[in-house]
Amino acid sequence: MSTSEHGKHTPSVTMRDVAKAAGVSVATVSHVVNDKAGARIGAEARRRVQEAVAALGYRQNALAKTLSQGTSRFIGLVADAIATTPFAGQIIHGAQDEAWKHGYVLLVANTDGNTAVENDAIAMMLEHQVHGILYSTWYHREIVVPEALHQTDAVLVDCFADGSGLRSVVPDEEQGGRTATEELLAAGHRRIAFINTTTPSPAQSGRLAGYRSALTAAGVGFDESLVFPSEPAQEGGYAATSRVLASGATAVFCHNDRVAMGLYDGLREHGRRIPEDIAVMGFDNQDVIAAHLRPPLSTVALPHYELGAAGVRVLLGIEEPPAPSLQLRVACPPIQRESI
Amino acid sequence: MSTSEHGKHTPSVTMRDVAKAAGVSVATVSHVVNDKAGARIGAEARRRVQEAVAALGYRQNALAKTLSQGTSRFIGLVADAIATTPFAGQIIHGAQDEAWKHGYVLLVANTDGNTAVENDAIAMMLEHQVHGILYSTWYHREIVVPEALHQTDAVLVDCFADGSGLRSVVPDEEQGGRTATEELLAAGHRRIAFINTTTPSPAQSGRLAGYRSALTAAGVGFDESLVFPSEPAQEGGYAATSRVLASGATAVFCHNDRVAMGLYDGLREHGRRIPEDIAVMGFDNQDVIAAHLRPPLSTVALPHYELGAAGVRVLLGIEEPPAPSLQLRVACPPIQRESI
Repeated sequence: MSTSEHGKHTPSVTMRDVAKAAGVSVATVSHVVNDKAGARIGAEARRRVQEAVAALGYRQNALAKTLSQGTSRFIGLVADAIATTPFAGQIIHGAQDEAWKHGYVLLVANTDGNTAVENDAIAMMLEHQVHGILYSTWYHREIVVPEALHQTDAVLVDCFADGSGLRSVVPDEEQGGRTATEELLAAGHRRIAFINTTTPSPAQSGRLAGYRSALTAAGVGFDESLVFPSEPAQEGGYAATSRVLASGATAVFCHNDRVAMGLYDGLREHGRRIPEDIAVMGFDNQDVIAAHLRPPLSTVALPHYELGAAGVRVLLGIEEPPAPSLQLRVACPPIQRESI
Repeated sequence: MSTSEHGKHTPSVTMRDVAKAAGVSVATVSHVVNDKAGARIGAEARRRVQEAVAALGYRQNALAKTLSQGTSRFIGLVADAIATTPFAGQIIHGAQDEAWKHGYVLLVANTDGNTAVENDAIAMMLEHQVHGILYSTWYHREIVVPEALHQTDAVLVDCFADGSGLRSVVPDEEQGGRTATEELLAAGHRRIAFINTTTPSPAQSGRLAGYRSALTAAGVGFDESLVFPSEPAQEGGYAATSRVLASGATAVFCHNDRVAMGLYDGLREHGRRIPEDIAVMGFDNQDVIAAHLRPPLSTVALPHYELGAAGVRVLLGIEEPPAPSLQLRVACPPIQRESI
């Protein structure tokens, strides 16, 4: 079943065919199918064109339209890792929905962080005359901007590059850390441990700053001995268990849901019940994990869908990140479940 | 920072500019940049053109090229749920890598299973003269083919539609179930429970058939009382624990990794060690979960990346699914960790 056997790739019905069937000029057909404002087409002619379009199965050629109008309806999205995390998928989803809403189509390229692939992807997008490019990473970090990105309008999503002049859309890590801590404070906890990542990142410093400011605002002093640096995965949470329990904390804010999942295992081995003996708060609202732990994990969501959507709005000039950072910060909302 | 301020959207260097700088005809430039076979261009003229292209930053317009050649380098991918699972992401990743390898660009649309969005997405792709469309679902199932899909070459990925005449690429569920069971048999187990899903699907019947055939081939009779229908999530695996233990099974094959994750919790509550007291085998090799349970979960991988890549090869006529099913079945390889 080859392509040529199908023979479906050459559009056979032209605007001229439609004009002939409708008994009008090609210009009239063009005005009707392009829905041009200001064109005076009689209701009867419009109806005849529409009927002929339906009867003949005429379909506009989007490429020809792009060329004749000199503007494209493509937005490019370059992602370093669509596939290795459910996160980047949500960025694509949000970007696509928002792009469609405004009549744009998303061209997606996954680069695995490979520079050569990245340059190819950007070149491909430029050849397709994209309106602009969203450059996104699967976790929030500072990047070195690929040179080719300066050849078009670009917005950084879930990443940033200070001094590059590029606008970016990132999660509000500090607000997220504050919100997570406030949830534990609201449940009456005063001695709250924080298992933070050992990896330097905006998430590491931002969530810590939020934790600290929430404690301060509640009149609970910040106690450095309650911060436990750990590998940001299940293994790190599990390994931190004894130290956390020895600290006398009644609640734990975990750097992410994977850490919380490992801590759950550790607490169980120590015979501690969640939340009766100790409360646990996650971060990320990671699909597949958070809602399905025992008990379901209270957490703070990383707003990936919203990051993608906001990226498109910034690219289209609908939303404008504030100067001088040129960073639009998207809130991380609390998700209440049963671990507090 | 609006688009017009950047003013980067109109390619300013034309083929004519290159020809002028190189001192050759536009036709010569066209032959060189399009790398036309059979065109006799002297080495000196070719070098001058290439230098002028580099010096002026000339970039071909892919849309114009598509129109002039009458064929497009787009392949469409319609997915029902890119974002709600890490799985579909791998399908995109595989499809994109394979498409690029053959000089094609992927147009991706996520429909959330919404019929109106689906029709819009397919229409958009037809307007962009895609070479063909991959229609994919995030879990393996039979579908009703959208009418518009018949207007182009289409390949179903991770789904199928018997009698539709459409070719499909699906995971080999039966082989996967057989492989999972064989791993447990190879470790010496003879009384092997199977927590299967309650949802009718190719995964339900295929994995069961594989489990059954592996037991039969090993001379171990199939015992229906060892099959435990459960919700295919953590909650289902947890709830099945007591029944599985009461059956006297020394090993459990779980319908998927999420079920295994819930079973881990249940077994821990009953004081059973994995794998010393009971072995556990998953299915899916789900990212974020499988490698990070305690102990890391032995499982069988759903080959999503390969499904996407094979879909593109089928669309391009490089690979051909066998008649009469027109289904290409992709193997699910075993992933050995520490739960057996």
